[in-house]
Amino acid sequence: MYRTVTCGELRIADVEKNVTLAGWVQRIRKMGGMTFVDLRDRYGITQLAFNQGTDAFDKANELGREYVIQVKGKVIERQSKNKQIATGDVEIEVTSLVVLNEAVTPPFTIEDETDGGEDIRMKYRYLDLRRNCVRKNLELRHKMAFEVRRYLDEKGFLEVETPILVNSTPEGARDFIVPSRMNPGQFYALPQSPQILKQLLMVSGFDRYFQIVKCFRDEDLRADRQPEFTQIDCEMSFVEQEDVLNIFEGMSKHLFKTILNIDLPDFPRMTWADAMKYYGSDKPDTRFGMKFVELHDIFHAIEEQKVEAERFSVFANAQYIGGICATGCATYTRKQLDALTEYVKRPQIGAKGMVYARVEADGNVKSSVDKFYNQEALQQVATAMDAKPGDLILILSGDDAMKTRKQLCELRLEVGKQLGLRDPKKFSCLWIVDFPMYEWSDEEQRLMAMHHPFTSPKPEDIPLMDTNPAAVRANAYDMVINGVEVGGGSIRIHDAALQQRTFEILGFTPEEAQLKFGFLMNAFKYGAPPHGGLAYGLDRFVSLFAGLDSIRDCIAFPKNNQGRDVMLGAPGLVDQKQLDELEILIKEKDNQQ
Amino acid sequence: MYRTVTCGELRIADVEKNVTLAGWVQRIRKMGGMTFVDLRDRYGITQLAFNQGTDAFDKANELGREYVIQVKGKVIERQSKNKQIATGDVEIEVTSLVVLNEAVTPPFTIEDETDGGEDIRMKYRYLDLRRNCVRKNLELRHKMAFEVRRYLDEKGFLEVETPILVNSTPEGARDFIVPSRMNPGQFYALPQSPQILKQLLMVSGFDRYFQIVKCFRDEDLRADRQPEFTQIDCEMSFVEQEDVLNIFEGMSKHLFKTILNIDLPDFPRMTWADAMKYYGSDKPDTRFGMKFVELHDIFHAIEEQKVEAERFSVFANAQYIGGICATGCATYTRKQLDALTEYVKRPQIGAKGMVYARVEADGNVKSSVDKFYNQEALQQVATAMDAKPGDLILILSGDDAMKTRKQLCELRLEVGKQLGLRDPKKFSCLWIVDFPMYEWSDEEQRLMAMHHPFTSPKPEDIPLMDTNPAAVRANAYDMVINGVEVGGGSIRIHDAALQQRTFEILGFTPEEAQLKFGFLMNAFKYGAPPHGGLAYGLDRFVSLFAGLDSIRDCIAFPKNNQGRDVMLGAPGLVDQKQLDELEILIKEKDNQQ
Repeated sequence: MYRTVTCGELRIADVEKNVTLAGWVQRIRKMGGMTFVDLRDRYGITQLAFNQGTDAFDKANELGREYVIQVKGKVIERQSKNKQIATGDVEIEVTSLVVLNEAVTPPFTIEDETDGGEDIRMKYRYLDLRRNCVRKNLELRHKMAFEVRRYLDEKGFLEVETPILVNSTPEGARDFIVPSRMNPGQFYALPQSPQILKQLLMVSGFDRYFQIVKCFRDEDLRADRQPEFTQIDCEMSFVEQEDVLNIFEGMSKHLFKTILNIDLPDFPRMTWADAMKYYGSDKPDTRFGMKFVELHDIFHAIEEQKVEAERFSVFANAQYIGGICATGCATYTRKQLDALTEYVKRPQIGAKGMVYARVEADGNVKSSVDKFYNQEALQQVATAMDAKPGDLILILSGDDAMKTRKQLCELRLEVGKQLGLRDPKKFSCLWIVDFPMYEWSDEEQRLMAMHHPFTSPKPEDIPLMDTNPAAVRANAYDMVINGVEVGGGSIRIHDAALQQRTFEILGFTPEEAQLKFGFLMNAFKYGAPPHGGLAYGLDRFVSLFAGLDSIRDCIAFPKNNQGRDVMLGAPGLVDQKQLDELEILIKEKDNQQ
Repeated sequence: MYRTVTCGELRIADVEKNVTLAGWVQRIRKMGGMTFVDLRDRYGITQLAFNQGTDAFDKANELGREYVIQVKGKVIERQSKNKQIATGDVEIEVTSLVVLNEAVTPPFTIEDETDGGEDIRMKYRYLDLRRNCVRKNLELRHKMAFEVRRYLDEKGFLEVETPILVNSTPEGARDFIVPSRMNPGQFYALPQSPQILKQLLMVSGFDRYFQIVKCFRDEDLRADRQPEFTQIDCEMSFVEQEDVLNIFEGMSKHLFKTILNIDLPDFPRMTWADAMKYYGSDKPDTRFGMKFVELHDIFHAIEEQKVEAERFSVFANAQYIGGICATGCATYTRKQLDALTEYVKRPQIGAKGMVYARVEADGNVKSSVDKFYNQEALQQVATAMDAKPGDLILILSGDDAMKTRKQLCELRLEVGKQLGLRDPKKFSCLWIVDFPMYEWSDEEQRLMAMHHPFTSPKPEDIPLMDTNPAAVRANAYDMVINGVEVGGGSIRIHDAALQQRTFEILGFTPEEAQLKFGFLMNAFKYGAPPHGGLAYGLDRFVSLFAGLDSIRDCIAFPKNNQGRDVMLGAPGLVDQKQLDELEILIKEKDNQQ
């Protein structure tokens, strides 16, 4: 070893010890007869002191930032202690210094608050990763993955590696494909998830499977999407929904406890219907209340008592009217309210407008629609909203209840953010259950599987499959933390006749079903156990623990929005020889060429 | 849960308990008024007893092999106990039986000794995986991977996921490539190893990295090769060779102890030169002795005392003559010896012939070359070989010492096998060190890096780089167990000038070196620490622990020699739409089309 101790471990008790350290030069301070160097490694920073007149002093004065050095010396007590760092009580009186490697000046400063923009940091990601704040995220990722494995191993789960070179899947997102040299004209696909393989492992009797595994989707990228991402993929046999929820609620509690030292209460279970009704979202942020109150019955009753000309047509005709009560926000200025109105009217949200009402200190309600509603009507609303003096009521309305709820959801989140109710250090976890089995697709003009076609219906809803399939609820569930869906899954269908019935509802003929899913159906014929599972997005789970907005910051070498790794220069051109061996051609842009 | 206990956990102490079990029907035995069913799950087998006259009895008689059932009943003591299985003291007096899923007859028997051939088992791999002997290998794999992680985590290693979609690497095997839809005409490559990325992580100051990671090589496949395989990939900073060897020797000991309960002694370190000299292999099987004895000096001295006509020209002209002594094998018949001669003359081995000599009970030596050598000469050889009465000496010779040693290596392994000296339950581990830096390539007509171009030379051999580069030894090492190279690595070059010098020796101009390796060299300019590491082949490591000949048996879903997953049907054809989106074409076989 080039060192006897790391840069993070010396304490006051180590004074007088002779040590060897190695690391990077973080900072150099020349102070008359002394030169001080902050030496950095993964474990911390240790101050090195060089006294004038020594060889080491002369060498130290020639060091540059990010030089890699090795020093020997004695641990001494610091005169001015630094309480900011764990080694701040001591420094090293250096007797010898060896430069292990010089460094050219990095293109940005290696500090938490760097001067480098996103592009340059990604290009030199290996330098960006030197920054403490970035490396910490990857240390957290390591710890989380390790604790996931420890927990699942203890619960009898086996980690089984499934192949990366698989076949193209029907009915999914777009696959990445890989030409096969040994089988010209044929392609492997990279897996979007090991869904079918993990179900096969249940048919194999593996009983409890998991895998922390890379998955791939060739989709246009958003800020929180990567072409390759990591799942914690799990499946269990002979289980019902509650069994899966309990095991994985336990896993989450284990992570919160071991990683963040947070004891979580049991996770509430909220039906999908309630999540939509009270939060307008299937992944509600429950760190704060501000639940929706439905007001259309109240307003319609009020409007019906009015003559046509006095009606507020927006509300009178709305299919849905819902409000939130922002506690203590009656002090919001007109400007703030206008900004909120603009916020919900942005094309991404799409509300037509916003109605607000302040409950004043004397209990009077002043609203933006005072000319349509008398105090009595407004009091009725305030009562329904449980609004108290000092509170602010915000109301959205629309023709489409689902759309309006989603708009109201955005408004709620924005107000929650403004009020500081979305503290990244506070965690609110819950299960969303009873998802609908099917959702209507305007594009496909048919019912689609909301989760996936192997998801089982709730037994009590099976009769509805014949009469009102859109009302059938599934044994499907999502784990939601702070408004983020960190995981989700379902109990699968293991009965062939029920599977056939759901394929019919999805509009597949028996032939189509056989073509698309025949392989798995065939495997099921050999004795499939009841089974179910779920998958977590590890990248998102880690970001949540780290309090990050983007998953990119917890990925060592992420890709940009064009799917490029700008550091590696991938993707890139390949040799003609490689294409020839694979018997493929690149289509020419210009036919003339 | 569909069960209160698994099929592996009931014992005599559980008698009288009411339990629910679920699993697969392994076997049904009808014995007059009783029917017995062996119920199987991952955890074991439990006998179910059905009494005539019950509903359950009638249902049990209609069960087929591999049906999935759930039963309720009482644990009772068995009259005739089965000592072969852990639950053999008890059985379940079944009161109710539910068929969870029927099963068609599987295409082969789900038993350790199955009637299914390789092809059919691979096609129905999900049924093959039901067999206890196959599933055990994957349980072992899980345990090994978990213990690797536990050990490395304790030693401060961080598992960092590196990307799967990377760029094509220079100077490696053939890459699998992935067309990029967002960057038409460009391709990702799947990594052959995360070599460059792990070295970058050292530049980033990660200090101790590991990853259990899929790697990919598009090579023609042999029995122990797969297009995708799993590495335990590791790298450390501020280390010298001994540090790496100690950490990973510790890891292997930890695995042997925790998985197999074997306490291993310290691993000997053998130089590459000695391994070649004494075993003719850089991965010697040291479970047994039978080390090579070089005999050319002895034979040449003997020959020189003879007149030309009496010389044994084969030995007289051989550059290399080497023998092994098979203890107690003087009883080998002529037929056995002829078979050994045929063995070494097979084209794969390529020896021209074999000379043998038996040391008889009276000490006389009888050889196949008695007409060329008198007893005195043969006694000299026997003494050199340390051969005792009852021993058999086997000798090979040739013009090329390296080739002949490899032939003698094969002979040694075969004899060791015949003598039962290669017990898969016995383990002999060692490090091979001091590999040559370079080896001559007849094909390329230049020196090639034996390990890879970033491997550092031994400091004391650096002067030889100018005078005799072929003699330079590297800081490279392999861990060898039972004749299998389970892992290997090196201390890397971190000095730019030394790296430049080795590129020159490899025949790269500075421009070529820049083109091929410039990216990593550039990163090194920003302060690279001294670093080194190694990688294990997990598949091979697991096979070794499992005592398997092929790595395929410890992979859940392996590919065949044509790179096909016959179960999934991968690779396969893809839609024209997919190719269009990727802007690639498949080359037509027939230009007329």
